Amino acid sequence: MDPIRSMLESVLAEVRPDDDGAVADYIPALAAAEPDRLAFAVVGPRGRVTAVGDSEHLFTIQSVSKPFVLAVALERLGRDEVLRHVGVEPSGEPFNAISLERGTGRPANPMVNAGAIATSSLVAEGDAAARSAQVLEVLSRFAGRPLDIDEEVYRGESNTGHRNRALAHLLRSHNVIDGDVDTVVEAYFRQCSVRVTVHDLAVMAGTLAFGGVNPVTGERVVREAVARDVVSVMASCGMYDFSGEWLLRVGMPAKSGVSGDLLAVAPSQFGVASFSPRLDPHGNSVRGIRILERLSHEFGMHVFEPHESIADPGIRVERDHEGILVHLGGELAFSGSERVLAVLRDLTEGSAEHLRIDARALGRAHPAALEVLRVQLAQDGDRLRLID
Amino acid sequence: MDPIRSMLESVLAEVRPDDDGAVADYIPALAAAEPDRLAFAVVGPRGRVTAVGDSEHLFTIQSVSKPFVLAVALERLGRDEVLRHVGVEPSGEPFNAISLERGTGRPANPMVNAGAIATSSLVAEGDAAARSAQVLEVLSRFAGRPLDIDEEVYRGESNTGHRNRALAHLLRSHNVIDGDVDTVVEAYFRQCSVRVTVHDLAVMAGTLAFGGVNPVTGERVVREAVARDVVSVMASCGMYDFSGEWLLRVGMPAKSGVSGDLLAVAPSQFGVASFSPRLDPHGNSVRGIRILERLSHEFGMHVFEPHESIADPGIRVERDHEGILVHLGGELAFSGSERVLAVLRDLTEGSAEHLRIDARALGRAHPAALEVLRVQLAQDGDRLRLID
Amino acid sequence: MDPIRSMLESVLAEVRPDDDGAVADYIPALAAAEPDRLAFAVVGPRGRVTAVGDSEHLFTIQSVSKPFVLAVALERLGRDEVLRHVGVEPSGEPFNAISLERGTGRPANPMVNAGAIATSSLVAEGDAAARSAQVLEVLSRFAGRPLDIDEEVYRGESNTGHRNRALAHLLRSHNVIDGDVDTVVEAYFRQCSVRVTVHDLAVMAGTLAFGGVNPVTGERVVREAVARDVVSVMASCGMYDFSGEWLLRVGMPAKSGVSGDLLAVAPSQFGVASFSPRLDPHGNSVRGIRILERLSHEFGMHVFEPHESIADPGIRVERDHEGILVHLGGELAFSGSERVLAVLRDLTEGSAEHLRIDARALGRAHPAALEVLRVQLAQDGDRLRLID
Amino acid sequence: MDPIRSMLESVLAEVRPDDDGAVADYIPALAAAEPDRLAFAVVGPRGRVTAVGDSEHLFTIQSVSKPFVLAVALERLGRDEVLRHVGVEPSGEPFNAISLERGTGRPANPMVNAGAIATSSLVAEGDAAARSAQVLEVLSRFAGRPLDIDEEVYRGESNTGHRNRALAHLLRSHNVIDGDVDTVVEAYFRQCSVRVTVHDLAVMAGTLAFGGVNPVTGERVVREAVARDVVSVMASCGMYDFSGEWLLRVGMPAKSGVSGDLLAVAPSQFGVASFSPRLDPHGNSVRGIRILERLSHEFGMHVFEPHESIADPGIRVERDHEGILVHLGGELAFSGSERVLAVLRDLTEGSAEHLRIDARALGRAHPAALEVLRVQLAQDGDRLRLID
Repeated sequence: MDPIRSMLESVLAEVRPDDDGAVADYIPALAAAEPDRLAFAVVGPRGRVTAVGDSEHLFTIQSVSKPFVLAVALERLGRDEVLRHVGVEPSGEPFNAISLERGTGRPANPMVNAGAIATSSLVAEGDAAARSAQVLEVLSRFAGRPLDIDEEVYRGESNTGHRNRALAHLLRSHNVIDGDVDTVVEAYFRQCSVRVTVHDLAVMAGTLAFGGVNPVTGERVVREAVARDVVSVMASCGMYDFSGEWLLRVGMPAKSGVSGDLLAVAPSQFGVASFSPRLDPHGNSVRGIRILERLSHEFGMHVFEPHESIADPGIRVERDHEGILVHLGGELAFSGSERVLAVLRDLTEGSAEHLRIDARALGRAHPAALEVLRVQLAQDGDRLRLID
Repeated sequence: MDPIRSMLESVLAEVRPDDDGAVADYIPALAAAEPDRLAFAVVGPRGRVTAVGDSEHLFTIQSVSKPFVLAVALERLGRDEVLRHVGVEPSGEPFNAISLERGTGRPANPMVNAGAIATSSLVAEGDAAARSAQVLEVLSRFAGRPLDIDEEVYRGESNTGHRNRALAHLLRSHNVIDGDVDTVVEAYFRQCSVRVTVHDLAVMAGTLAFGGVNPVTGERVVREAVARDVVSVMASCGMYDFSGEWLLRVGMPAKSGVSGDLLAVAPSQFGVASFSPRLDPHGNSVRGIRILERLSHEFGMHVFEPHESIADPGIRVERDHEGILVHLGGELAFSGSERVLAVLRDLTEGSAEHLRIDARALGRAHPAALEVLRVQLAQDGDRLRLID
Repeated sequence: MDPIRSMLESVLAEVRPDDDGAVADYIPALAAAEPDRLAFAVVGPRGRVTAVGDSEHLFTIQSVSKPFVLAVALERLGRDEVLRHVGVEPSGEPFNAISLERGTGRPANPMVNAGAIATSSLVAEGDAAARSAQVLEVLSRFAGRPLDIDEEVYRGESNTGHRNRALAHLLRSHNVIDGDVDTVVEAYFRQCSVRVTVHDLAVMAGTLAFGGVNPVTGERVVREAVARDVVSVMASCGMYDFSGEWLLRVGMPAKSGVSGDLLAVAPSQFGVASFSPRLDPHGNSVRGIRILERLSHEFGMHVFEPHESIADPGIRVERDHEGILVHLGGELAFSGSERVLAVLRDLTEGSAEHLRIDARALGRAHPAALEVLRVQLAQDGDRLRLID
Repeated sequence: MDPIRSMLESVLAEVRPDDDGAVADYIPALAAAEPDRLAFAVVGPRGRVTAVGDSEHLFTIQSVSKPFVLAVALERLGRDEVLRHVGVEPSGEPFNAISLERGTGRPANPMVNAGAIATSSLVAEGDAAARSAQVLEVLSRFAGRPLDIDEEVYRGESNTGHRNRALAHLLRSHNVIDGDVDTVVEAYFRQCSVRVTVHDLAVMAGTLAFGGVNPVTGERVVREAVARDVVSVMASCGMYDFSGEWLLRVGMPAKSGVSGDLLAVAPSQFGVASFSPRLDPHGNSVRGIRILERLSHEFGMHVFEPHESIADPGIRVERDHEGILVHLGGELAFSGSERVLAVLRDLTEGSAEHLRIDARALGRAHPAALEVLRVQLAQDGDRLRLID
């Protein structure tokens, strides 16, 4: 028995009896969801997925698609161009708020519907079918398998999506989106109707958690800077008017959807996803929130959980016939470079031994940290040598 | 020559020529600030302060006092009680916005003035002088030296503080604060008039960055959970209606003050502070922002910068006469425990050797990660042993 | 030479040199308006129209259609049903503000675009052409001649009307309007594109000023209560976020349109309309406002101008062989009935003469005022008699 | 038995059983109000007061003081200067809303608390007692008798008035008010604590209804233009966020107070006041509203009730030995001058008789209407003559 799986199972068992909340019912296909369905999955840095509960159950992605479509927009157009069409400021308002910036008409951020429609309009071209196919292709790369669309849910979204159409026409009136409004809106409805499992979503979250590289397939889907940007926007805006309290209490950049899905990122550690259709009044999955709270509190996934290792380059000192050998391991951040200097200072003070720094076992080394070492070497080059 | 200092000096040299912005002039003592003053300082995990520029120049702390007074409130009353008086939601509005929650009258968050006044009213008792003394005592512990108050600035604040008095009376009308409004407001004006240097502020930031322990004095000022909460609130609300974009672009929980001070936290890595009196239209120090942007981009201090080390327990495998010895080093997070299990699985597969895990060199180990190892040991106890 | 016309000509001459403001340019057909065009017209209680300037110049009615379509809705559905779809509260916001009531989605009032679209959706049925024909028919009865539509302006409105489409979809999402949104919006664009002259608009205003009866054709177009309701809504909401100041300064319930038309009602006295295409930043005709201000100040058309005659039933006392004969003339309001009683009291005190009240020359008599006389007669029936 | 009194008694009897609503309880002295108290009074154009119910019961005037203090401000400073400190735009918000204009800090209008405090600060000078005495003196002239202050209510207002203090400090921060904030606020609390009866309030309303002249004492308290301005502001803003619907449904410029008082103006007809302490959720007297609705519907007091007499100069034609004699009576508005011209035209067409216009019986004649006659006379002077 895998001890990680068994710990996740115990979380599942704990939240399972909670039947608070209600299934979304604005379209028949969502109203027909089985309310007791429950699943969650995590994917770690080496691509290992641990999924518990109804982990192969399919549902529509809904708003959880938003950060990934934002990622595509950032990848294709760059941050400046995207920010010309949509802000990144939490609005203190609900998901379907209008929240357009005075003057420019920019939606407050890409996590509210208006901003998601604007983002969606940027990432694809052609008619609604063509646009949908392009988005589907990228979401599939995030998930690591070919995804498809739930046509019945899509038709339901399209039939009831008056408010989203209104938002799109407003954006059109401000030239935030251009072209045919219906095409953009239908493509957006299709984007929300993509079918996924918690396994898929965990991998998608993992792709953001691990700098844009799908931890299962190993494919780089977006640049590291793009993944970081998306995680930043999820951190400030992902939970609508609950974002500040979520960051305080749970501390995992996250995004929820009306089907009951919830996705969260523990940067450099885990991608996480849950599914449970009953929603609270804010439209968030009741049991999903509880699962994430448990993960944060008991498994140390809060982003502001202290991590001494960030500033600790794993220094190990050996002496051999050539002098002193300083092994660095793990990661060398700028803050760690200070520690290396301090160690070097201690070792060389009152000593004439030669020193070698063996950096070959370093995983990630920040350029500025290496620069610190290089400057020190330049000052002290006769007796200090870097092996990399 | 210290290579870290020289790199910080180069940042200073780069931003020094920028004379955009204007000194705050709503009270004479602030208007009299020397606009060219420029300084910044960082403090690392081992308490080493590197300060460049006018690092001993004294100025008033202003709004940068807010996160520390919040810390005191959280430490004394606990999170639930504090949240009964003030929210933690970004308001999308400027620093002096009214932003009280419909019904309860709770200010949106402790970083806007209304919320800071509410927080300030919670942390001390007695008349304005007594309250001020209590706050001063705690701020001094964050700074690691006895601070004092600039009485001239305080009188200026008090003479012009009509809007803050209005906010306090509003809070009083909602019973968010109680007692005498004037006493609360005067104590708040005194809190804003505490004199500091960038060296002081960097140490204060460091105390938040390193889990509530002053990195210079080694004193635990607040609990780790309190420091994490304060950093979370700074991340979502610290830069007012620029918070989302700041988190995206700079990614360091921060707080600015109208005297031109700016303080930021790179969790587990650095406390940072800068001073330059010329402000942009949002009331943030122009050159301060540029310094922080440089630190973020070039020195890798963005909170969502990937850190592989978080998930890497620094595994080193040796074989000796007793069998296999697995050394763990650095930090063992839950995500790292997965990697340990994988290594153990590889080592034991098709082998009958005995395995020992040497956890004595671990710095920080998360309880859940140790639990994973313990469960695995319990399953496999005959041939696996933990040395801790 | 007609002295009324010559006084109106002098108003025209005074405002003519003012070339402040700019022609609306959001559609080519409006941008092509001749900016120097200037006209205004008044219609009095007997249907006499005095029109000066370019009084036969045709332009599109635009937002000035709103009160008339509201009148039709009130006439057909009654006030309660109309109020279920749209409020009557000034919003303190501009014409194209969204201003939907929390919860119900009701637009703030029928004078802002959202409310006008809602009202428009209530008054007609069928496809856009059928709806347009129905509205045109009623507007024509208000104007007293068959009106038509400027097809070029209509196409321009339709091509650029993204914001109005957005408002309509929002209303649809709240079930404030139902059916096909495009049909409703196109009918609304056609309603705004009806062609009129200031002569037409003055007659339309007159129909509201004189209780729903077209003063020229003598046709009752809507019930008196409906006309009063429409005038009330114009008084509180007709000039958007300038309504309060307009009521203070000008005191004539009014409505302006983006083509430069402006229509105002002096209840029981005049219908007024002006045309001058250059607009101020609020979208109101610059010279139109000046004309109305002049009419209000110099011609005593402010609704709160005192009118002693309202409380004065035009009492004239005669003595003949049968005793005392009290002639009533003009109008008998409730306040006037008090004066009649006082006169009767004076006449009968210390006298035994018989009294007759001749009410045959009364124009309008309020039922409650007649009731006062009847009660008095019942008490004093032996010596007091009403001739009516 | 007076038939007017008996009709008002029947209104009282009808609303008496309604015990909906609750007495204001934010200060003990208000909470102690006897909830069943019920009274109302009207005063007509000749100063006759008809008061029914508990008409001599004393209560505090509260917000009903606002229009009268506005009147004093307009009388003393002129409209332009008053408008520099407070707007006249309905805010769509409740009585205690903050609603300050962006940039200037002007309160939305003088009927919300913020605006009333601003207005109050303009009308008097000196310390709070001196200010209070000055305001009391003017209110007494509106009421026609010396009023005094309920000191117990005043103390209660002062003890609980945190929100009003907040508003005043906000206004001070925008320089909308100057001087000592406490002085202004205490004077405002005293203004709200003036004791009145419905008889007093009816006379005060009457002074506004009849152009600034107290209908009982005959004293001109404010200029006619000031009375008209105050009535205009009550019409657009007097009932807070219910003002638009009130103007539609009741159509009497009005103001309500938290003690349960309600005052309304039927211009040129009546001043009206009611008292009944139970309030609805908007803070308006439940039975007071019902009384006013009855007066509006059944007694024809809606301001947009048609009044033919306004346009009817009461023309009576006689022939004597000198020719034709046209008697004018009642009131000659501009619209009536058109009718006079038409009559003259009919009489002179095809005739050579001399015409005299006897204007001596005219009550009020608008200057512009007289000007019309003068122009006609100038054209036709040889055979037409004005007797005035």
